[in-house]
Amino acid sequence: MDTVKKIDVLRSRLKEASRNGKSVGLVPTMGFLHEGHLSLIKRAREENDLLVVSLFVNPTQFGPGEDLESYPRDLEKDADSCSAEGADILFAPDAGEMYFEDYGTYVEVSGGLTKGLCGKSRPTHFRGVTSVVSKLFNIVEPDRAYFGQKDAQQVAVIKRMVRDLNFDVEIVVCPIVREADGLAKSSRNIYLSEVERKAALVLNRSLKAASERISSGERNGDEIKAMVENMIKQEPLSAIDYVEVVDAENMKPLEILKGSVLLALAVRFGKARLIDNIRLEVE
Amino acid sequence: MDTVKKIDVLRSRLKEASRNGKSVGLVPTMGFLHEGHLSLIKRAREENDLLVVSLFVNPTQFGPGEDLESYPRDLEKDADSCSAEGADILFAPDAGEMYFEDYGTYVEVSGGLTKGLCGKSRPTHFRGVTSVVSKLFNIVEPDRAYFGQKDAQQVAVIKRMVRDLNFDVEIVVCPIVREADGLAKSSRNIYLSEVERKAALVLNRSLKAASERISSGERNGDEIKAMVENMIKQEPLSAIDYVEVVDAENMKPLEILKGSVLLALAVRFGKARLIDNIRLEVE
Repeated sequence: MDTVKKIDVLRSRLKEASRNGKSVGLVPTMGFLHEGHLSLIKRAREENDLLVVSLFVNPTQFGPGEDLESYPRDLEKDADSCSAEGADILFAPDAGEMYFEDYGTYVEVSGGLTKGLCGKSRPTHFRGVTSVVSKLFNIVEPDRAYFGQKDAQQVAVIKRMVRDLNFDVEIVVCPIVREADGLAKSSRNIYLSEVERKAALVLNRSLKAASERISSGERNGDEIKAMVENMIKQEPLSAIDYVEVVDAENMKPLEILKGSVLLALAVRFGKARLIDNIRLEVE
Repeated sequence: MDTVKKIDVLRSRLKEASRNGKSVGLVPTMGFLHEGHLSLIKRAREENDLLVVSLFVNPTQFGPGEDLESYPRDLEKDADSCSAEGADILFAPDAGEMYFEDYGTYVEVSGGLTKGLCGKSRPTHFRGVTSVVSKLFNIVEPDRAYFGQKDAQQVAVIKRMVRDLNFDVEIVVCPIVREADGLAKSSRNIYLSEVERKAALVLNRSLKAASERISSGERNGDEIKAMVENMIKQEPLSAIDYVEVVDAENMKPLEILKGSVLLALAVRFGKARLIDNIRLEVE
């Protein structure tokens, strides 16, 4: 596996592959890879001739006061993981390679898709995501790109961007990977103290309880939301950012559960802002 | 030449060409083709194996109250012209093919590049241009795309977008084509009455006079601007939108003329809002 830091070098490698008719898979990451990322890489490895993993802690998707500086990084370990999973290229550009000093072009999905859920407390986050993903798509020109269902709103936003701007790429979404005790894998879990780590288990527990209640026939969105909120509030270390019950495609709040339902939440435990969700098909 | 209305059909044609290693040129237009467009098509024909001309009166680059409905259209004549120039494909989609009803993704070059000149009186214009050009780039994936220097600000904005978002396309800029009497060719010239048509000649005349004055040593931007404004105001049928002396790359107003200088203007004559410009290298 080669670690490539320059766009031009990456492009010439990819053009060679494209001339030879090879399919290209892209797994965009911010690094500090965990089993969730590795599940994307494994899937992409199976489905493509050439596999590019990108590793870039993208400044434009962090807001003021967020954890850009402290975001965990371990390039050496990440390179080992990618290599072990059979990636062909690890693309790990510096910020200066991705953004000129007078950079000023943004790709933005407007409307409800980016305004609610994480968009409410992170108003410039998705604009940063869609801009950098556009750049990566233009640089790599992948046949398939892989994203995790843990970032459910991000998945919906990227799918909409791909549709609206006619990117010629298939978006492959992979399931949430969890620790043995149910906590969704996240690079930000490293921020958790031992007690916060335990308290955070309430997230998966409350999602499972809600899922069971829906299976038992509950169809009232507010009831489900209140139930999850109440369970989380039992944990004194938790601070809820949001709990929402929305349509999984357009992120619109659902009063009555029907179709593809996303139950999504963001909750702070100490320095860590964790997100988790469950997607259900409801008749 | 084939006229193609569907994105999928165009894509399969282009994929075949790409498999055969053919280079692709794109000339994006809003149709009602004149000699200016044809100069782009001729140049693109020389430089590429496969030549796509797009014809789409893009609603998102027209503001409220602008001439979207009345913008001149003549698909049949345009198809004949493209065919005569040797284009391989005329891509002429309907608005519904380009924009879903819940379309909401915009590519926007922020900052001074889009705020001054035409951006001042047309605040959503360049956002519409960069969004539709992004779509066309993603659909056609051209090696080269051709734009006219008449839309000097558009050229600067698109070059910046290509740089910032890493589009893998060469932007080729072709000189302004003029009528025998000096009026810059434009689809909107058709709006001019006979007297307005004559009055509009002041635009080229004033640009030439300014150019001569700069050649004679004048380096004060405000002096040049005032001179052009005064000449245009002599024509009672004219209504100046703007006259600006700016850096040709970043569109920043220049007090002292130096480097790549763009003298650009927009002036109304009756229903027609005409733009024109001259670019000079000043020592």
